[in-house]
Amino acid sequence: MKIGFVGTGVMGRSMAGHLMDGGHELTVYNRTRSKAQELLDRGAGWADTPAGAARDADVVMTIVGFPADVEEVYFGEKGILPEAPDGCVLVDMTTSRPDLAVRIAEEAGTRGITTLDAPVSGGDVGAREARLSIMVGGPEATFVRIRPLFELMGRNIVHQGPAGSGQHTKMCNQIAIAAGMLGVCEAVSYARTAGLDPETVLESIGSGAAASWSLSNLAPRMIAGNFDPGFYVKHFIKDLSIALESAQAMGLRTPGLALAKQLYEELAAAGGEDNGTQALYKLYMT
Amino acid sequence: MKIGFVGTGVMGRSMAGHLMDGGHELTVYNRTRSKAQELLDRGAGWADTPAGAARDADVVMTIVGFPADVEEVYFGEKGILPEAPDGCVLVDMTTSRPDLAVRIAEEAGTRGITTLDAPVSGGDVGAREARLSIMVGGPEATFVRIRPLFELMGRNIVHQGPAGSGQHTKMCNQIAIAAGMLGVCEAVSYARTAGLDPETVLESIGSGAAASWSLSNLAPRMIAGNFDPGFYVKHFIKDLSIALESAQAMGLRTPGLALAKQLYEELAAAGGEDNGTQALYKLYMT
Repeated sequence: MKIGFVGTGVMGRSMAGHLMDGGHELTVYNRTRSKAQELLDRGAGWADTPAGAARDADVVMTIVGFPADVEEVYFGEKGILPEAPDGCVLVDMTTSRPDLAVRIAEEAGTRGITTLDAPVSGGDVGAREARLSIMVGGPEATFVRIRPLFELMGRNIVHQGPAGSGQHTKMCNQIAIAAGMLGVCEAVSYARTAGLDPETVLESIGSGAAASWSLSNLAPRMIAGNFDPGFYVKHFIKDLSIALESAQAMGLRTPGLALAKQLYEELAAAGGEDNGTQALYKLYMT
Repeated sequence: MKIGFVGTGVMGRSMAGHLMDGGHELTVYNRTRSKAQELLDRGAGWADTPAGAARDADVVMTIVGFPADVEEVYFGEKGILPEAPDGCVLVDMTTSRPDLAVRIAEEAGTRGITTLDAPVSGGDVGAREARLSIMVGGPEATFVRIRPLFELMGRNIVHQGPAGSGQHTKMCNQIAIAAGMLGVCEAVSYARTAGLDPETVLESIGSGAAASWSLSNLAPRMIAGNFDPGFYVKHFIKDLSIALESAQAMGLRTPGLALAKQLYEELAAAGGEDNGTQALYKLYMT
């Protein structure tokens, strides 16, 4: 297929590469062209605008930074929507606002174009190893049609419902992580403050009812003082902000999420925004 | 060995049974005698007081309800400490206050008696199947000596440090669970409120960075409206209260724990104290 691919950052670059490995013809656009160079060297075409990447495409995939970037890429002067050809499918894989996903679907629908929202989890390693979890919202038939492309990039690919459902599901993922991270930070800092050896504590608590991915994977980094980004604090704050706004719009009470967002903002204000999410631990040990 | 065993509730009954299976001679005491009947029928001796269970014992094990019960059982008029013979080892397996464990160790020490604090996790099922995690504080040599008894009751048996360290480790376990439960409740209630199918959402988020024991084991019960106790809300509140007091005494900030305790107290006030901990979900969906 002819695929327009917008956004060749750390995630997008790996994902686009897997599509090329699958034999698809890519035209890429990125704000900073140098980040697309590897793909261009492998034979991808270059477009100077999102619109240019969409022209003649069977499918356009986007994975950019913030919801404002998604708006610009779809609705902007040089955006995708005015140029996307009839019958093409637009797939936004950015973690973005559920209501924006619905708005893109509605706008596109007036022109007979179908869309999917398909945010991912699994991080840069998951993207590189084509092991992403992909959470998809949009029409079932469109999902079925695009699924072979998703399978080049991920393993756990689930259709969650109509437009916006992929984004909502990603929010559930981030909400579960957010409050859970407080528990992990507080357990590790309690252990250290009580004079225990935190690694020995993990031997006791790491495999029972307290077990979690964060406890197994991030607590050891906290203990070692390794705050390098797996997932950036600044990106997590973006996600938690979207989640909290979305929850509030639905009238849902989420005090754990609200507290986590507040603490992460405190961490960012103290200079931690380019750390990994496990750096929340620093807030407890100061 | 001659073992005095105090506390034959749901947990203690199974644990005492495993000690008898291991060929040890038990004398049991429980406030409500009927709860010990099964053990008496199997040949355990009966004592009318904790002191009576301690007399002539090589080892005394206790697993009762609240820290106040531990105090009564050890320091009370008919308590263990005045009666425990020289050279005997006292092991409290109740989840209790770390500072109380230290106090018991100090009092016993003046009489040449050694103690361990050895709270467990794994619940009634873990107790029944001898698969408890046992977190032990006290002298290393005493731990080594008692370890064969622990091995009859559990699998993950770790010496965590001096007196109080077992209790501190259990607090780390409960702290990690507490805030994590908020994340699970909020993720599931977000999913439902957003019109998603929560079970399908779990397919997407259950095995990645949001993965946890609570998400895998308790979220399905929340979704099914099953609030039966695995672990009672009222007991969890006890643990969170101990953890919060202990954290505060150390000058440690634990906002996630404080929030969880507050929400669980709200749930108890609304009549949920005999539910399982997953019933926190009800607070979100009302």
